[in-house]
Amino acid sequence: MRRTLKAAILGATGLVGIEYVRMLTEHPYIKPAYLAGKGSVGKPYGEVVRWQTVGQVPKEIRDMEVKPTDPKLMDDVDIIFSPLPQGAAGPVEEQFAKLGFPVISNSPDHRFDPDVPLLIPEVNPHTASLIDEQRKKRDWKGFIVTTPLCTAQGAAIPLSVIFSNFKMTGAYVTTIQSLSGAGYPGIPSLDVVDNILPLGDGYDKKTIREVTRILSEVKRNVDEPKLQDVSLDATTHRIATVHGHYEVAYVTFKEDTDVNKIKEAMTNFRGEPQDLKLPTAPEKPILITEEDNRPQVYFDRWSGDPPGMSIVVGRLKQVNQKGIRFVSLIHNTIRGAAGGGILTAELLTEKGYLEK
Amino acid sequence: MRRTLKAAILGATGLVGIEYVRMLTEHPYIKPAYLAGKGSVGKPYGEVVRWQTVGQVPKEIRDMEVKPTDPKLMDDVDIIFSPLPQGAAGPVEEQFAKLGFPVISNSPDHRFDPDVPLLIPEVNPHTASLIDEQRKKRDWKGFIVTTPLCTAQGAAIPLSVIFSNFKMTGAYVTTIQSLSGAGYPGIPSLDVVDNILPLGDGYDKKTIREVTRILSEVKRNVDEPKLQDVSLDATTHRIATVHGHYEVAYVTFKEDTDVNKIKEAMTNFRGEPQDLKLPTAPEKPILITEEDNRPQVYFDRWSGDPPGMSIVVGRLKQVNQKGIRFVSLIHNTIRGAAGGGILTAELLTEKGYLEK
Amino acid sequence: MRRTLKAAILGATGLVGIEYVRMLTEHPYIKPAYLAGKGSVGKPYGEVVRWQTVGQVPKEIRDMEVKPTDPKLMDDVDIIFSPLPQGAAGPVEEQFAKLGFPVISNSPDHRFDPDVPLLIPEVNPHTASLIDEQRKKRDWKGFIVTTPLCTAQGAAIPLSVIFSNFKMTGAYVTTIQSLSGAGYPGIPSLDVVDNILPLGDGYDKKTIREVTRILSEVKRNVDEPKLQDVSLDATTHRIATVHGHYEVAYVTFKEDTDVNKIKEAMTNFRGEPQDLKLPTAPEKPILITEEDNRPQVYFDRWSGDPPGMSIVVGRLKQVNQKGIRFVSLIHNTIRGAAGGGILTAELLTEKGYLEK
Amino acid sequence: MRRTLKAAILGATGLVGIEYVRMLTEHPYIKPAYLAGKGSVGKPYGEVVRWQTVGQVPKEIRDMEVKPTDPKLMDDVDIIFSPLPQGAAGPVEEQFAKLGFPVISNSPDHRFDPDVPLLIPEVNPHTASLIDEQRKKRDWKGFIVTTPLCTAQGAAIPLSVIFSNFKMTGAYVTTIQSLSGAGYPGIPSLDVVDNILPLGDGYDKKTIREVTRILSEVKRNVDEPKLQDVSLDATTHRIATVHGHYEVAYVTFKEDTDVNKIKEAMTNFRGEPQDLKLPTAPEKPILITEEDNRPQVYFDRWSGDPPGMSIVVGRLKQVNQKGIRFVSLIHNTIRGAAGGGILTAELLTEKGYLEK
Repeated sequence: MRRTLKAAILGATGLVGIEYVRMLTEHPYIKPAYLAGKGSVGKPYGEVVRWQTVGQVPKEIRDMEVKPTDPKLMDDVDIIFSPLPQGAAGPVEEQFAKLGFPVISNSPDHRFDPDVPLLIPEVNPHTASLIDEQRKKRDWKGFIVTTPLCTAQGAAIPLSVIFSNFKMTGAYVTTIQSLSGAGYPGIPSLDVVDNILPLGDGYDKKTIREVTRILSEVKRNVDEPKLQDVSLDATTHRIATVHGHYEVAYVTFKEDTDVNKIKEAMTNFRGEPQDLKLPTAPEKPILITEEDNRPQVYFDRWSGDPPGMSIVVGRLKQVNQKGIRFVSLIHNTIRGAAGGGILTAELLTEKGYLEK
Repeated sequence: MRRTLKAAILGATGLVGIEYVRMLTEHPYIKPAYLAGKGSVGKPYGEVVRWQTVGQVPKEIRDMEVKPTDPKLMDDVDIIFSPLPQGAAGPVEEQFAKLGFPVISNSPDHRFDPDVPLLIPEVNPHTASLIDEQRKKRDWKGFIVTTPLCTAQGAAIPLSVIFSNFKMTGAYVTTIQSLSGAGYPGIPSLDVVDNILPLGDGYDKKTIREVTRILSEVKRNVDEPKLQDVSLDATTHRIATVHGHYEVAYVTFKEDTDVNKIKEAMTNFRGEPQDLKLPTAPEKPILITEEDNRPQVYFDRWSGDPPGMSIVVGRLKQVNQKGIRFVSLIHNTIRGAAGGGILTAELLTEKGYLEK
Repeated sequence: MRRTLKAAILGATGLVGIEYVRMLTEHPYIKPAYLAGKGSVGKPYGEVVRWQTVGQVPKEIRDMEVKPTDPKLMDDVDIIFSPLPQGAAGPVEEQFAKLGFPVISNSPDHRFDPDVPLLIPEVNPHTASLIDEQRKKRDWKGFIVTTPLCTAQGAAIPLSVIFSNFKMTGAYVTTIQSLSGAGYPGIPSLDVVDNILPLGDGYDKKTIREVTRILSEVKRNVDEPKLQDVSLDATTHRIATVHGHYEVAYVTFKEDTDVNKIKEAMTNFRGEPQDLKLPTAPEKPILITEEDNRPQVYFDRWSGDPPGMSIVVGRLKQVNQKGIRFVSLIHNTIRGAAGGGILTAELLTEKGYLEK
Repeated sequence: MRRTLKAAILGATGLVGIEYVRMLTEHPYIKPAYLAGKGSVGKPYGEVVRWQTVGQVPKEIRDMEVKPTDPKLMDDVDIIFSPLPQGAAGPVEEQFAKLGFPVISNSPDHRFDPDVPLLIPEVNPHTASLIDEQRKKRDWKGFIVTTPLCTAQGAAIPLSVIFSNFKMTGAYVTTIQSLSGAGYPGIPSLDVVDNILPLGDGYDKKTIREVTRILSEVKRNVDEPKLQDVSLDATTHRIATVHGHYEVAYVTFKEDTDVNKIKEAMTNFRGEPQDLKLPTAPEKPILITEEDNRPQVYFDRWSGDPPGMSIVVGRLKQVNQKGIRFVSLIHNTIRGAAGGGILTAELLTEKGYLEK
């Protein structure tokens, strides 16, 4: 049996923070031990949190005091989960890693450091070994591992299956994203009532960039086209849904490619987390729906077990001999953030990176 | 000066019917003379209508009595606008055409009759001549002309500019459509609150089919690839916006194609309605927006003059050497239905089809 | 230990039906044994249900076949839960009761039969004895018990505490209700996007009528004013929330009345379900929130344990010496329907009405 | 004929600012001459404005440059409209008034200065004479006049008719307000998607306080009860509607009072603006709707002529012999802000306060 790991959750009252709290409360060996907040230090967590998820604040957590983000107070903490916002996250995470803490970050600040893994446990688990390089190079006892942008994961997980097994030449993704991805207060209401909010070039680009890095780290069964010859694009939007990023992808191939083969590959897709039976690993990372009006955000975002850990793919279609279409739905704050972070911690535990 | 045309509007209390009423009240020579309804016959229009558009019911219309859909009562009517629902529309429209009425239909029932025009005045105005064939073949004094599905128009208008001037090989469209396109009561609220409603295979297919017919009737400046070699696809959805269909299109080409050339072609795009200075013709059928977070449904759907008659295209981007992306926004009940119907009536007037 | 009761759920795929399924799956002694549907007979429940609630369809239920509403197939069923729609419910429920089944109904059809209880277990549990009268009078072996309209319960539960302990002269309630209260397809989306839907005189009246009957059956600690001298009114609306009815009540009194006394009475309010420790009884039927921006529908509708069984009351205020205000939030499909039905079944079990 | 007044609009790109721009563009003698903004100085108005209202930016305004809020640049300006936010407004408005400008303010900062009118032209027009006192006391050539909070107006306009003609003892108002009342960015989307946002004690109180001041200035036809003996309360909320505050009022009386008399009084209600035929005065300040499911925000907020200047009252009901209920709907940024401001300017013009 595993020893219990005590977790500190930074930004514990935020939209990703609450999912860490909720999921870790039921975790077999990682326990929420330190809840760090900002505006609400010294108050009971249950009083100050905006619990924008299912159920109510777990009883055992309700009276835990929110504490400052101060490593000196975290002597007995074994692991740091950091869903801090862009800009704020970077220096804090470095400080913790330097002091010897393992940091799992959902923030963008270190996602493109070449010695920092950008990890989806089913997709590029071997990149965990960058930790060794990172520690050596930076002379750190701790380390930083990042998880990708929720939007990028919704595309990258199914695309990684395609890219590693079929001669993909391009993927063109249109996203219809939920509000929780932007945090709170986040998106002004007048931007999304009777409206669609285009997220603009910057968001499009960072999505493409992250998908590109992830695909570059996938182990492939085909060796062409090279990634640099694959055309990737994203057109991103937000609408008035609370959780769940819905994405439509058109994918082109070098040669005739059967959509049923792709469906089969996605259905059979498993990764290290499944092989290792990690507690937060869903049995199937990708669930296929056959109904032509699914997935639907309201009904399918909590798919998988633990809920929200499986991506749902549907509307698979042969568009032409060398092109297919699919849509995917990812729970952005679970699989795309907190759940992904916990699964990453479990993988790193297995790989020995969390031993004292 | 044109003689005044008296118009009957079938389904005048519906979501397209109200736009006919609103626009014709201010029309220089077509006047709303007969408002046909169903559940509300005998009552004042202003009392029974659900005015789901800007402003209030025009004063001069408020007390007009809603009447039955009965040709015998329409002796002095010159033209019929029919936004009746699928299934109901077909036989009624035939009956009117047979009796000598010109019928402009926004309904799908006759859209694929080979002798019935499926007309977008700027795109395939020459297909109006099918009327002659139709009259001869069916021995009718009147005739039926149809306008395409709103969703299809939002894609087909910009795509027609591309297809006629560039060597397009494929177009892959993701739609995010508004509720008014489904009429009232239409979409249940629980389908779109905190949700995205995929419209499914049937809706995808009819969109593709209509775009295909329209492109097949465009006059081209390039002669390849042939339309049958062009791959077209659509993935359709509805969300909780009231009016305005937003569509994202990825377009591929046979050879290197500069997105700026495409932008220029769209900017300069004019058709017969503009040449003829038809009253309902917007100066520019396509308005280009340069801002990367536009078009937005709430702010841009009423674009052009008359409001709602211009499509707004934006987020134009060179995706790769042989591929571009754009988004378009069409006011579905104006340009995509009532406004398109009125513009069609004006074109047919110019072409002499509405002379007694 | 209780013997297991096998339950049939009529309308099991509806919005209340799914909550019965969800809650009974975890119930200690009432088990979902027969799922009756209409359009979906013969299909696996998990395939046809629209699971508009938390989580996913329970695994053990997913493959249960939806069956017809036919008593002949229900030999081993011990209890019927009937959230059937108005009109459809009445005759079906009578048929079952005649054949010997205990029927717990969430439908309005029998709510005003004088020999049928309109039961809120904490408020008027003694009215269960009407069952004896009902059986005798109708010569039935089974019986019908009804639960009140969700909207009426949201007002009646807190008002019953006030009416039984203070000299209340009037209560004026404004409701802001959720969509699920109207079932599916229910409210058209165009009625609630950027809109408030007034529910009109009929809905106002039925709310008042049910509150009146419930208050008439409350055991009082004060004996004036008489109920017939108490003025009750409701102004009802629906908006685009999925679950949770929010109600604002202004209450007037014959004499000076301290809002803190009322708060205390609500806080301390317990009923037979709490005394009997019924499994579905929340510890506190009414939870008081002190924050002036709570309760909020999204965050508080799942209050209590089981989730959704406690009403949350807040914004308690002394308006004048003889008047107070409060707001209440009730989970309409849980406490206001399925949860209320299950709690009623538990109460009747304790009272011996469910013995064979 | 009136001389043309050149108006400066402060905060011209805000949600009230745009209504000033829209309405003044069509005004017979007040013209938008100076558009003051903050973040967008130097840019064309049409490029930077978020036009969250009907239609498109007027052509004649589109290219006007946004300028700083600097009196030195406003030599030829005759009147200042100030919908600046709380806190920012106060000192700026004083500065302008000191320099000789007439300032019409929609901001709260000066609403309770005893020498500053809090003016609804139909309700308390005589309070305009406070301007004389204000000028004398402060030794200003200009002056400040304020309009009340939109929420307060929605209640105060119909209540003033009741209070001045009937022996009202109390009024208890529940508001369901729109997002535009909070400005942009204003309310976070996650506060109103699938939620109701209670506005809390502070907002409740300021609403009551403003209604109280307005009623204290009404000319009454009855002389009891005194205002200090009238109980007033408000429970305020915001939901996901764009424009339009909907309010439910329960009103009590000292003696038997016939709701039909109240309906008649509201129907016949006219004020100085109607007598003077001011250009922005609607023919009827209060429109009565008889349908029990109206007013509806989407359909009725633009009522009156100019659109949005009439309040719609409906669901009038005799609750008991000494009590009635009604609901009102006010367009918060028109009647409740910009339209009210323009109507005030017209009244002051008639009263001679805008002569040079």
